[in-house]
Amino acid sequence: MDRFVVTYRIVAEDEADAAARAASIALEDTVEIPRDVVPAGYVEDVVLGRVESVTARGGGVWTALIGYHVDAVGRELPQLLNVILGNASILRGVKAVDLAPDAALAERFPGARFGAAGVRRLTGRASGGFVCPVIKPQGSSAETLARLCYLSAVAGADIVKEDHGLANQDAAPFRERIGACAEAVGRANAERRDQGDTTQALYFANLCGPPHQLRDQAYYAKESGAHGILLIPGLHGFDAMFELAQDPDFDLPIMAHPSHLGPYVLSPDHGYGHGMLFGQLMRLAGADISVFPNHGGRFGFSVDECEEIVRACRDPEGLGPAILPSPGGGMSPERLPDMMAQYGEDCVYLLGGSLLRAGDRIGELIAEMRAALSGRD
Amino acid sequence: MDRFVVTYRIVAEDEADAAARAASIALEDTVEIPRDVVPAGYVEDVVLGRVESVTARGGGVWTALIGYHVDAVGRELPQLLNVILGNASILRGVKAVDLAPDAALAERFPGARFGAAGVRRLTGRASGGFVCPVIKPQGSSAETLARLCYLSAVAGADIVKEDHGLANQDAAPFRERIGACAEAVGRANAERRDQGDTTQALYFANLCGPPHQLRDQAYYAKESGAHGILLIPGLHGFDAMFELAQDPDFDLPIMAHPSHLGPYVLSPDHGYGHGMLFGQLMRLAGADISVFPNHGGRFGFSVDECEEIVRACRDPEGLGPAILPSPGGGMSPERLPDMMAQYGEDCVYLLGGSLLRAGDRIGELIAEMRAALSGRD
Repeated sequence: MDRFVVTYRIVAEDEADAAARAASIALEDTVEIPRDVVPAGYVEDVVLGRVESVTARGGGVWTALIGYHVDAVGRELPQLLNVILGNASILRGVKAVDLAPDAALAERFPGARFGAAGVRRLTGRASGGFVCPVIKPQGSSAETLARLCYLSAVAGADIVKEDHGLANQDAAPFRERIGACAEAVGRANAERRDQGDTTQALYFANLCGPPHQLRDQAYYAKESGAHGILLIPGLHGFDAMFELAQDPDFDLPIMAHPSHLGPYVLSPDHGYGHGMLFGQLMRLAGADISVFPNHGGRFGFSVDECEEIVRACRDPEGLGPAILPSPGGGMSPERLPDMMAQYGEDCVYLLGGSLLRAGDRIGELIAEMRAALSGRD
Repeated sequence: MDRFVVTYRIVAEDEADAAARAASIALEDTVEIPRDVVPAGYVEDVVLGRVESVTARGGGVWTALIGYHVDAVGRELPQLLNVILGNASILRGVKAVDLAPDAALAERFPGARFGAAGVRRLTGRASGGFVCPVIKPQGSSAETLARLCYLSAVAGADIVKEDHGLANQDAAPFRERIGACAEAVGRANAERRDQGDTTQALYFANLCGPPHQLRDQAYYAKESGAHGILLIPGLHGFDAMFELAQDPDFDLPIMAHPSHLGPYVLSPDHGYGHGMLFGQLMRLAGADISVFPNHGGRFGFSVDECEEIVRACRDPEGLGPAILPSPGGGMSPERLPDMMAQYGEDCVYLLGGSLLRAGDRIGELIAEMRAALSGRD
């Protein structure tokens, strides 16, 4: 099979309608012309999507497998997404739920640089879930944010992540903020080393754009001492993440934030399946860590949807190495033991608002989190 | 009022729930911390979103107006979208349906460079709807695509638009394709001038990325003779469009393609209203022409939804100049008189598959379209 295969969930009236809708997806996402004018030869034989199967699932729902040749893609990620769910994203009752890469796609889109094992190696923690406080709120000065970074890092945080809303506002301009926070985490790590700690906190800086400056911002963060970057593929585009993940000189891990992506998963009939978007596509685009809103927090994902995301992040058949899922969105320290039981050690556990509530007790809170998430070490 | 105001459609259980959900949006999209830990002073008074009103609409639906200060944004478009519908895009039953800019937002996001009047000036047509054949399918050689460009342009097309699926595939690599198509349209325009025609065809080239090369690609297209560019904000990000629209040296019009944006409008409960996404946000990001799938074609937009898009593209209260709506998605020449009656002259009428079906009769088809869309001239 020289094609990668996308599975679509299709709402249809009957068998014939389902078959017609599958055929229309195959046209829409490749040649985008009526079937009767598709040129014979290369365009028809190779470029045009090919319906491999259409299977009834009951309740007016069908599953269609459509194979696409990598020639319809080229090497650009936006065009790959055009083929997977470009115009078809606008068709009613069409949802992409799985991507099965072929060898040609895997060669062009090799996945994350670090993955779960690589991020673990950078932290120095042999086992245990990762403690990840989130630095906020926006509107705070760079000094205030840097102090939170220091307090979290010195107390034993594994990853210190900036809020995705820290952009380039006047209260804490991008370069000033990155410099101050990186210095603060660096100082905390030095103190940890002096205490004989063999682990370190990784500082993930949030990039803000515009597009032609994202790469410069990423390098600025790296040169300032950041250990990773946070990106919002729903705003900067998945290709911005892919470009940095594939840049041979950049070599920092990337954390993907789900902001603005909600509409792609909230409807049962449109967009992507939870595992496909927050697992498969994040791996495809090079994320090492994929943040998603946990069930039971402020957002409405179900337990099953969250577990689907985690499975897709870890699936050994996926593109590149397994990556780290990162549930957040209103988590509290009390929930950590249950979360640890559900998600296990290879997981980044976010903590946002509760961190601020701790005030001067941040150190105790981080220590409590580490205990709840401790593994074999 | 020193705030811009976003209107949200909220599904809620009762009045109190609606008020609580509005308050949670105001938190989520700005400070993203619990209300009780929002720092007093600047963060609480300025950065935090402010619920201006919550109004019952019946049927379990409320409308909430939330005011945001531009300080929560800065000058980057991704952060503006974070504030409008970032994390709130993941909340169930929350849809953004209107953006009312204040003076500060309008100063930072001035809208399209050309708008409807500017594009009309570039074509040289004093009146009438714009005839816009779409060049495809992908998989064709650059020579074949260039021939379609020539035949369409010489026959009197106003805009020759590349298919959004023409990226950088081996069959017609980006630079080779752009060069060949620009040359073909240029040759056709020279012949039109020789015939005394005072109008010209504008060739819109599709960009493909990656992010740090988009600007170079846009300039390459311009230097090759392209008159405009096509961009997919749902894949490259709205900021990629904004950056080019604001670049003082670029000065070509931009056409926005709706690929991958379907899930933002297809659910009544999530994402954006049709007019907000394809009108207001396209203008905000600098599109001069906004492509959307017309009712009655292959996609499922209603007449009302299409008219909402057109109103938002033309609203004199919107950001920057009025822009051109561009309905497509399976249009045929027979439908043009009705479409002209509905959408009027300041509109770009796409024609894709039917163009290919015309074969050697492309010239007649374009002439027929011009007649159907003729205005006062």
